[in-house]
Amino acid sequence: MPKIVDHDVRREEVVDAARRVILREGIDAATTRAIAKEAGYSNGVLTHYFADKDDILLSALRSSHRRIVERLRAKLAGLTGLAALRELLLDNLPLDEERARETALEVGFWGRSLTGGTLLEVQREEAAELRHLVRALLDAAERAGEIAPGQDLDDAAERLLALVDGLSLHRLLYPDRLSPETLRRLMTAELDRLGGAS
Amino acid sequence: MPKIVDHDVRREEVVDAARRVILREGIDAATTRAIAKEAGYSNGVLTHYFADKDDILLSALRSSHRRIVERLRAKLAGLTGLAALRELLLDNLPLDEERARETALEVGFWGRSLTGGTLLEVQREEAAELRHLVRALLDAAERAGEIAPGQDLDDAAERLLALVDGLSLHRLLYPDRLSPETLRRLMTAELDRLGGAS
Repeated sequence: MPKIVDHDVRREEVVDAARRVILREGIDAATTRAIAKEAGYSNGVLTHYFADKDDILLSALRSSHRRIVERLRAKLAGLTGLAALRELLLDNLPLDEERARETALEVGFWGRSLTGGTLLEVQREEAAELRHLVRALLDAAERAGEIAPGQDLDDAAERLLALVDGLSLHRLLYPDRLSPETLRRLMTAELDRLGGAS
Repeated sequence: MPKIVDHDVRREEVVDAARRVILREGIDAATTRAIAKEAGYSNGVLTHYFADKDDILLSALRSSHRRIVERLRAKLAGLTGLAALRELLLDNLPLDEERARETALEVGFWGRSLTGGTLLEVQREEAAELRHLVRALLDAAERAGEIAPGQDLDDAAERLLALVDGLSLHRLLYPDRLSPETLRRLMTAELDRLGGAS
């Protein structure tokens, strides 16, 4: 048992180190060498815990998503329909330091995902889950009579998800232009719009 | 004169090579060595034309933006208000191969910009210009009576710009989910909404 615990702890240390390097210097600077140095291990030690650099990066992405899901689970408890959707979408915005770091990590992965490979596959799987959840909450909202008639809910889901990523990116790149309050106001307005407000 | 022409031609060749490397392998793979190899020059030759790697990447970003601006100038000729805004926003979406490549380049730069430096400054300057143009067209549309009353045009500008980047990113990452037609429909609906359609 102790060995297995050590293994997991060690992996987590390395993943945390990878996350710090990515956030500080960008995903291109997150070489195995740089990650090992940040974690305080030798390059050789890393190969005991990870197959390659992509394995480390994927673990960092997954562990970030896992934290988000856990936080969301707590926030969404007991909520459904538009109320749950509001929590979900606001939680995905970089409204505080923790979520700003999560978003920055995500933005780094977008560019890298576009070159293909496992990272793109994982990105797609996890994005499909999020889209599925948004779509399911829109359905629930519609059944509860919370959605104004005549709206295409597939289009609504894509619009909301595009806004979340677009606003999140712009908050990080142009913080003087988009305050957390602006993000919150724009996102809330979209939910009001679904409910039939102009 | 010939020398100057050569200099510019050479720089353009290197910038084109950088763009190809970024699109094929990601921005982190675009080292000076890789760019030199792609361009068919030695590392040493590159130093005659560029100060450093960031100089090359910035030139690639700026040359991509210059092409976009030239294309836009032609498309916007004679248009104003919502009609011009429609052309501007649709042109910014990856609706064909050329614009998909431009978007992929842009996404790669986002992650790198977040680590700061000149790239972030340039990104901010050019984004501010685009925002200014969108805002000016919204003003013109309002003066022409094309905007339904009671809308905050600053918020509208941020919403449109966030949607453009969010939809563009999602089209590249999740092409099965978002067709060019969907992108066009969602963006057009936003313009109709400004005009007062539900």
